[in-house]
Amino acid sequence: MKAVKQGLLPCFNLLQLQGEKIIKEAEEENTQKEMSFDFKAYMLQKGNFVNQALDNAVTLKEPQKIHEAMRYSLLAGGKRVRPILCIAACELVGGNESMAMPSACAVEMIHTMSLIHDDLPCMDNDDLRRGKPTNHKVFGENVAVLAGDALLAFAFEYMANATVGVSPARVIQAITELAKDIGAEGLVAGQVVDILSAGLSDVGLEHLEFIHVHKTAALLEGAVVIGAILGGGTEEQVEKLRKFARCIGLLFQVVDDILDVTMSSQELGKTAGKDLVADKATYPKLLGLEKAREFAEKLNTEAKEQLAGFDAVKAAPLYALAEYIAHRQN
Amino acid sequence: MKAVKQGLLPCFNLLQLQGEKIIKEAEEENTQKEMSFDFKAYMLQKGNFVNQALDNAVTLKEPQKIHEAMRYSLLAGGKRVRPILCIAACELVGGNESMAMPSACAVEMIHTMSLIHDDLPCMDNDDLRRGKPTNHKVFGENVAVLAGDALLAFAFEYMANATVGVSPARVIQAITELAKDIGAEGLVAGQVVDILSAGLSDVGLEHLEFIHVHKTAALLEGAVVIGAILGGGTEEQVEKLRKFARCIGLLFQVVDDILDVTMSSQELGKTAGKDLVADKATYPKLLGLEKAREFAEKLNTEAKEQLAGFDAVKAAPLYALAEYIAHRQN
Repeated sequence: MKAVKQGLLPCFNLLQLQGEKIIKEAEEENTQKEMSFDFKAYMLQKGNFVNQALDNAVTLKEPQKIHEAMRYSLLAGGKRVRPILCIAACELVGGNESMAMPSACAVEMIHTMSLIHDDLPCMDNDDLRRGKPTNHKVFGENVAVLAGDALLAFAFEYMANATVGVSPARVIQAITELAKDIGAEGLVAGQVVDILSAGLSDVGLEHLEFIHVHKTAALLEGAVVIGAILGGGTEEQVEKLRKFARCIGLLFQVVDDILDVTMSSQELGKTAGKDLVADKATYPKLLGLEKAREFAEKLNTEAKEQLAGFDAVKAAPLYALAEYIAHRQN
Repeated sequence: MKAVKQGLLPCFNLLQLQGEKIIKEAEEENTQKEMSFDFKAYMLQKGNFVNQALDNAVTLKEPQKIHEAMRYSLLAGGKRVRPILCIAACELVGGNESMAMPSACAVEMIHTMSLIHDDLPCMDNDDLRRGKPTNHKVFGENVAVLAGDALLAFAFEYMANATVGVSPARVIQAITELAKDIGAEGLVAGQVVDILSAGLSDVGLEHLEFIHVHKTAALLEGAVVIGAILGGGTEEQVEKLRKFARCIGLLFQVVDDILDVTMSSQELGKTAGKDLVADKATYPKLLGLEKAREFAEKLNTEAKEQLAGFDAVKAAPLYALAEYIAHRQN
């Protein structure tokens, strides 16, 4: 057995060298394609499509007050990173934009709901969000609670009702995934552990990672995974993209922690330095600023490794989104 | 044409008389079957099944605090009218209990969520619910908001993930229906108009009906309609049961208004006389107590008329549920 293996070695080595040459050439080609990808134009175009779709999805009908409150926060001009991730993942596995759009909007509705409830006086008690007064400051606490509830319910209605060109079984799989990512084992789990950790002096790295993986990464994971499901991705593709999303999700929060201590409120469009004031555990606090930056780069690299097996042109938006999340300034 | 019609008349009359006799006999038989239906035993048995299913659906996992808060309100021993309506509607159109159970649980999760959020200090500011301290009194406002959010999300996860023996297309139809019934055109619409009406002196009957049809009837309608959808009901059957549910939904609230002025807090298991204190528009206030009771009876009759075309034995639970909602004491 050993001899056979040895006998095969020269040939194997030759093949390996040829293989490495092919991989290197392909990587260079991919880098060229990546470089030729116009990320700004892509984000602008997709962001406009998403904004239009959100505007059409939640119209100003009766009772006006609640729809006004929902639209106020939903159309406040966020970066639409989550819906764009959803669409990009759908297109990467061979689906098209329209298959993912209702779910992409649903993810943004849920993200908005979580911000409205998170800003409430009984939660983070925030007055400023995306550079504007928070929902409860404008509409009152009671309407803000209900606007969040309505957005959460409507997200599922819209996903179930407006998705076309996808088999009902895949829509159900996507609904299950999204609901799990935002419930007591996802987003809400992160929020509740975050609340319970406030003021604790012994919050370690593992504990902090639990909060971030749930509070921030879960919904980004949901966005990518439901895009891949709706686009017709294989189980293997969906799981690779899940791993990609987990990395960029954690990356998103590590960068958020870094920005909180390095930028001003004006630059961020929300209150800066809040983590320091609240004495919250953050990556810069636990690792130091430089190590936190190194950790962010490691996550960025790990995320991009998951995209290696996909077509480079189609994967360019996700490569660029990881880069953007790693190096964003607000 | 006239002659032909006249010529047919005697025969038609005879057939009509025979038909009336058959209908009368059938009605008498139905009344007997209704009378032989043991409602108390039915409610006890189905209620136990629902409680067991809810207990299994939301277990005490990590993070414990949020699951504890969810279970505290979900398992506080309500009457389970909504899930039982869902199961009864499913069985009436030919489905079985297991097809409806995950959705029946989902309806109760959503009902519980609406109670938790409704009791918050920024909403109704209630200290007592189902004879126990309200969720935020035990777990704090922040955890109560999140427990509601988690129950809302989990309702859809459970419905999408745990329903078996039903086609994915019907599950999606049921999810769409339920989400619509609880969002800004359903339950939330009723809540927000209710909030905005507090203290107004010119709330008329139409306005009051809008609040009740949305705040209370929408979720009861959802329970019945999704049961009928999941059980394989025809479009005609689903719409008849929708009308039935709208009547008993409004009936439920009219009776609630009546109980608020006629019963004590101890009898109700929640604060009585609140509507009077808050000077809220109610049916007894707008119609007087006797006329409000007459209106309740009218709705009860209209509801039961919708069941006329169904098999009497299978319809017995819904007949009895309408009677129960009309004549309940708490």
